[in-house]
Amino acid sequence: MANSKKFMKLGAFLPAPGHHVAAWRHPEAVPNGGHNFEYYLEITKKAEKGLFDMIFLSDGNGVRTHYNSKNELSRQGRMVHFEPITLLSALAVHTTNIGLTATASTTYNEPFHIARKFASLDHLSKGRSGWNVVTSVTDAEAQNFNLAKQPDHRTRYKRAREFMKVTKGLWESWEEDAFLYDKESGRYFNPDKLHILNHHGEFFSVKGPLNIAKPPQGHPVIVQAGSSADGQDFAAQWAEVVFTAHQSLVQAQTFYGGIKSKARQYGRDDDQLIVMPGIFPVVGRTREEAKEKFEVLQNLIDPVVGIGLLTGLLGDVDLSTYPVDAPLPDLPETEGSTSRQQLIYNEAKEKGMTIRELYLSVAGGRGHRSIIGCPEDIADELEEWFVNKGADGFNIMPPFLPGGLDDFVELVVPILQKRGLFRTEYEGKTLRENLGLLQPVTL
Amino acid sequence: MANSKKFMKLGAFLPAPGHHVAAWRHPEAVPNGGHNFEYYLEITKKAEKGLFDMIFLSDGNGVRTHYNSKNELSRQGRMVHFEPITLLSALAVHTTNIGLTATASTTYNEPFHIARKFASLDHLSKGRSGWNVVTSVTDAEAQNFNLAKQPDHRTRYKRAREFMKVTKGLWESWEEDAFLYDKESGRYFNPDKLHILNHHGEFFSVKGPLNIAKPPQGHPVIVQAGSSADGQDFAAQWAEVVFTAHQSLVQAQTFYGGIKSKARQYGRDDDQLIVMPGIFPVVGRTREEAKEKFEVLQNLIDPVVGIGLLTGLLGDVDLSTYPVDAPLPDLPETEGSTSRQQLIYNEAKEKGMTIRELYLSVAGGRGHRSIIGCPEDIADELEEWFVNKGADGFNIMPPFLPGGLDDFVELVVPILQKRGLFRTEYEGKTLRENLGLLQPVTL
Repeated sequence: MANSKKFMKLGAFLPAPGHHVAAWRHPEAVPNGGHNFEYYLEITKKAEKGLFDMIFLSDGNGVRTHYNSKNELSRQGRMVHFEPITLLSALAVHTTNIGLTATASTTYNEPFHIARKFASLDHLSKGRSGWNVVTSVTDAEAQNFNLAKQPDHRTRYKRAREFMKVTKGLWESWEEDAFLYDKESGRYFNPDKLHILNHHGEFFSVKGPLNIAKPPQGHPVIVQAGSSADGQDFAAQWAEVVFTAHQSLVQAQTFYGGIKSKARQYGRDDDQLIVMPGIFPVVGRTREEAKEKFEVLQNLIDPVVGIGLLTGLLGDVDLSTYPVDAPLPDLPETEGSTSRQQLIYNEAKEKGMTIRELYLSVAGGRGHRSIIGCPEDIADELEEWFVNKGADGFNIMPPFLPGGLDDFVELVVPILQKRGLFRTEYEGKTLRENLGLLQPVTL
Repeated sequence: MANSKKFMKLGAFLPAPGHHVAAWRHPEAVPNGGHNFEYYLEITKKAEKGLFDMIFLSDGNGVRTHYNSKNELSRQGRMVHFEPITLLSALAVHTTNIGLTATASTTYNEPFHIARKFASLDHLSKGRSGWNVVTSVTDAEAQNFNLAKQPDHRTRYKRAREFMKVTKGLWESWEEDAFLYDKESGRYFNPDKLHILNHHGEFFSVKGPLNIAKPPQGHPVIVQAGSSADGQDFAAQWAEVVFTAHQSLVQAQTFYGGIKSKARQYGRDDDQLIVMPGIFPVVGRTREEAKEKFEVLQNLIDPVVGIGLLTGLLGDVDLSTYPVDAPLPDLPETEGSTSRQQLIYNEAKEKGMTIRELYLSVAGGRGHRSIIGCPEDIADELEEWFVNKGADGFNIMPPFLPGGLDDFVELVVPILQKRGLFRTEYEGKTLRENLGLLQPVTL
């Protein structure tokens, strides 16, 4: 564990069939990967072979793609997939080292369920679970949970903060050595090591205790991706891994310095908050091959899909009524993920992009840094960001799967290892140990 | 599938460390089985070797055991365990034939989550999932979900009925052949085969569609265990398997005839509602050995635990203030599972039992039929109930695990097979096929 700090951390962000919006149409893509366990097992084992710290699954509680008609939606390729906690539970018992991080929403769940399911996943995986905490961003999800519209941004974050306190409290129900299993005396556990939460707050009343023993990691590694002011404050207080999106090293450095400084204000150590920007790599053996690979995907984008993608990225705004080759129109503010929206929107406006140009530019990385090049190009940029305090590691977003992950594992990882930037074997047994994160302290 | 009707169905009801209240203290019991995946894998594989239709996991959203102090609770042995849907997801990918049935509550969940998780489990297991629908029965669970007391019995069932309509509707979001994956035309699915629910009811507003393809079984096999009037009516309408508790063949026959007749009133076929009473078998090579095995467990019951067990079984009533060797006192009515409570309570009153006598009598089967005897004794009684229309099969409740299940698989199953009462190989690939249940029809 002592050495783990010098290495960059790597996450494999693995939505079937890949990150590019046209991934499913790629000749080599497996279009039904979203509910194909063998497919997920193959890519997870590939990521484990590549010594990734973890796989990362995004999630929504519904079909989040914006659509005006079923016909429009039918041209999208990623609206159906496994529920991530069930999928990771299955992957947990066919892998041994790789971390397993699932997204779950604090807006449409109850803390008791979430605390319990992640504790269960942590036991199944023997300490390899991670929870990407989101507050959700679409009205489509709200409409699956008895609401017409989602709660406002501020309310979602207030609820999220109380949610974290409750889940942390529930994970502390039983001390690590609470269970005695003393058949002779008939004492199953030491009553002094049971703590009943008795939480009464604004959003939740939860008595406890949790009906599962303390997770091997204390609790799952807490991952967070919100980049709004509220999101960053939340991350500074609670997150152990921050997944973020930057287009340049300067942007990355600004965020990196800022979030670490905010975390220090919460009394937290710099090492205990790992910043991982998302990277969309298109790897070719040569730069030309990489560009060709990318063009194959770009040429497969249906304009209906491109526009739908923007609508989601810019915060549930319908762009289908505007001409696709005219400049991006002015957009109203929404309750969506406003900081990400601003980032993409401002840049497009500055460059005077059309709707088509904008969707082509975000079709891969969707706001994350795209690197299209030979293995050395990718390694160079990751090294540059890593050594210059723009990142502690990266969440790798392959264009399509399994091909895009295979390329990264086989071509980029060996270069990073040769340069001493990445591990050649797993340092520990748990996700926490591999990330160099301490067991959580009691609240 | 054509032959499957002549065989009895068998469920393996597998709570670690077994059904007897003192199971964890048995010299051969694995006391930490509740969060030990290897243990669960071993017993599940054993049940699959025994050609059981399914394993069955009960569940509660909290520690349901009644306790006045942590000290009292610390003498109980089964308050911590895996969350069942995560556990079954993991077991799904290490087994090939056996059905996987988990309990989930309609009172403390949202239908979108439940529809989605069971669809995910059904895809992971390639059509082997079952959902035991419960409305929950303790205030302890309500207190983990923002309530001081549980909703009343009638309200819980009203919610459960609407919950079923919503989950069934969500499972019909995508027709079986909705997905085209047509890379050439860019058409991922056929828009005519997507159905958006748009449910607006008393308890739920759920738009849909579900973000996962139709489960291989159409939906999980619906299991139900409520024996109240409301519970039976619910079962007659929705359940495909009814898990029930009877002490005698006459009781079982009355229930069996009644529930099938009620199901016919809902336009359902007798074959499509499978009645499975719970059986607590203590199997010895001889009757004497069986009695000795049972006494070993009975002698391990701590009075504190015995009284706690009754409190739970009789509906959250505190018995710890009454003398243990005096007759059972009169009890007030509660919002608990009133029909089960009445069954046990009336019988105890009739027999003039003391508190101790009552807890000793229910410590194993907890209201279910106990059979303590040699393998032929067990097989005889199962055969008698099966051929005389008291049961279509049985949910087997081993006293402790793995030993109690090993005994049943190795000693009782071969006799049932020899008599032509039980399969010698799985008839189908899905739980539905093995149970002889049809794919569900669209609402």
